[in-house]
Amino acid sequence: MIGPYDTNTLLHVFFLIAIVAEAMTAALVAGKREMDWLGVCLLGCVTALGGGSMRDVLLGNTPLTWVQNPHYLLLTGGAALFTIGVARYMHKLRKIFLLLDAIGLVVFTVIGCNVAIGLELPFVVVIASGMITGCVGGVLRDLLCNTVPLLFRAELYATVSIVTGILYVGGDALGVNHTLMMCTAMAIGLSLRLLAIRLSWGMPKFIYKGEMD
Amino acid sequence: MIGPYDTNTLLHVFFLIAIVAEAMTAALVAGKREMDWLGVCLLGCVTALGGGSMRDVLLGNTPLTWVQNPHYLLLTGGAALFTIGVARYMHKLRKIFLLLDAIGLVVFTVIGCNVAIGLELPFVVVIASGMITGCVGGVLRDLLCNTVPLLFRAELYATVSIVTGILYVGGDALGVNHTLMMCTAMAIGLSLRLLAIRLSWGMPKFIYKGEMD
Amino acid sequence: MIGPYDTNTLLHVFFLIAIVAEAMTAALVAGKREMDWLGVCLLGCVTALGGGSMRDVLLGNTPLTWVQNPHYLLLTGGAALFTIGVARYMHKLRKIFLLLDAIGLVVFTVIGCNVAIGLELPFVVVIASGMITGCVGGVLRDLLCNTVPLLFRAELYATVSIVTGILYVGGDALGVNHTLMMCTAMAIGLSLRLLAIRLSWGMPKFIYKGEMD
Repeated sequence: MIGPYDTNTLLHVFFLIAIVAEAMTAALVAGKREMDWLGVCLLGCVTALGGGSMRDVLLGNTPLTWVQNPHYLLLTGGAALFTIGVARYMHKLRKIFLLLDAIGLVVFTVIGCNVAIGLELPFVVVIASGMITGCVGGVLRDLLCNTVPLLFRAELYATVSIVTGILYVGGDALGVNHTLMMCTAMAIGLSLRLLAIRLSWGMPKFIYKGEMD
Repeated sequence: MIGPYDTNTLLHVFFLIAIVAEAMTAALVAGKREMDWLGVCLLGCVTALGGGSMRDVLLGNTPLTWVQNPHYLLLTGGAALFTIGVARYMHKLRKIFLLLDAIGLVVFTVIGCNVAIGLELPFVVVIASGMITGCVGGVLRDLLCNTVPLLFRAELYATVSIVTGILYVGGDALGVNHTLMMCTAMAIGLSLRLLAIRLSWGMPKFIYKGEMD
Repeated sequence: MIGPYDTNTLLHVFFLIAIVAEAMTAALVAGKREMDWLGVCLLGCVTALGGGSMRDVLLGNTPLTWVQNPHYLLLTGGAALFTIGVARYMHKLRKIFLLLDAIGLVVFTVIGCNVAIGLELPFVVVIASGMITGCVGGVLRDLLCNTVPLLFRAELYATVSIVTGILYVGGDALGVNHTLMMCTAMAIGLSLRLLAIRLSWGMPKFIYKGEMD
């Protein structure tokens, strides 16, 4: 089967960079929780591949990516293990990781949209598929670390995914050149995310203090 | 495909009311956690549609409801957003929401049973399917808000779902008129839930203080 | 359909013992959280059958075990309920439960490997399938009880599963007699787990105190 990754080598390379970056940042989160080495590996795999897995399970798009390409498990688990060794130097690379994480977000989003487009699903589901692919890995990481998922509170994370998806799919529907639109959507999404981090942008919060149940 | 919702317009109308009510109460929970606006939307969608999604994933019943009918995503997300604007008036409507939530529980239960019956699954699985549809949305909401799910501790919530399911499916098996049995089961389940809230009924608790591991 | 359990009566008997043991220990955890009786039942079912369910959902291996054999739901739910009655005597049986839990781990692992082998999946996925089957039930239990899963921190739990899986599948690939290899792998995995408990063995922990995000 020719998957969406094969259609675009650049996207595939970005995908590999993104899952490695996600696994490495997840490993640092695991270290904050004093998990053991295998726990670090597992959290890296779940964070990097969980979004795509959730998407494929919800859309019934089997077999899953890592079942077809088990070396993704080794790559992400290995990246998490590697992080244990280099963690002391990683604060110097903090900005690079924020950049790689942001690239991961838009790449995952585009890949997720592509999968849903390939299944000929309606627009809203395509956008949802992009967002699930981009964001659920981090949600699973936070659940397994027993914190309220950052997604629901962080700087424009899910918003960036939705904006990227709408630009990408919308431009395509308007007949703009596919590759051009994909790159434009990713560039805008990436800029938005980096600006949000730099300027501490965030969605307004909903604060409710009343009685509830 | 003609789904179980089309077979009964009344059930479908109740379904729409129920997902809106679930999304709105989830939005208030999100507000307690100071989530951002998009987080509120997402939690609303997950809570309202998560039970049915879990059921369909476990039973292999694809495509999922919201994949076929993406406007459910817009409806529940929109209801959650709307809640942000009207939250200050909602304590006055508290009793109405408890009622709508209880209606949602029994409606989701009957729909979940119908799906499993349509797949010709055995009795125990039909009851489980009803309970998963009725209760898992709230479990996912509580997990994402980092609390022990209320389901495992609240007033007869899951119990009501099981009782409703057994009455509905059992009556059907005994040859009672289908629509009559459905309405009876839902009415009894609803009364039980409302009485449980009113009288603070609950299942006995299991309290264990010994050593464990 | 002839499932993997039918191919080996001994494995099936161990499977039944294992799900009962998992449900009973989960019930004690539920008691620590003061859950109500139905919550205890549900947590027992999810813990005992959740690993296999997650495996089958991820591998697209429907129908799930408990959908085909709904009496597993009754068995595990009943075992959890039964635990409420006998909990006061269970500290005397603590060692037996640790043993049964360890047997469950290796039995679940071998069954999980068998399922993936039956689907002709690659080696790494077979090992992952064994580990998911062996470990995810406990992860779900801990998530529903709102704690960081023990799996990521406990004595060699996931490690034992991986070692058992590699020995079992690796030996098979080398042409060793199937039943012999299965029993050897399970015996080694079991010994490793029991030694780890006895001697408080654990994987090294990764402790990270730096800035992260």
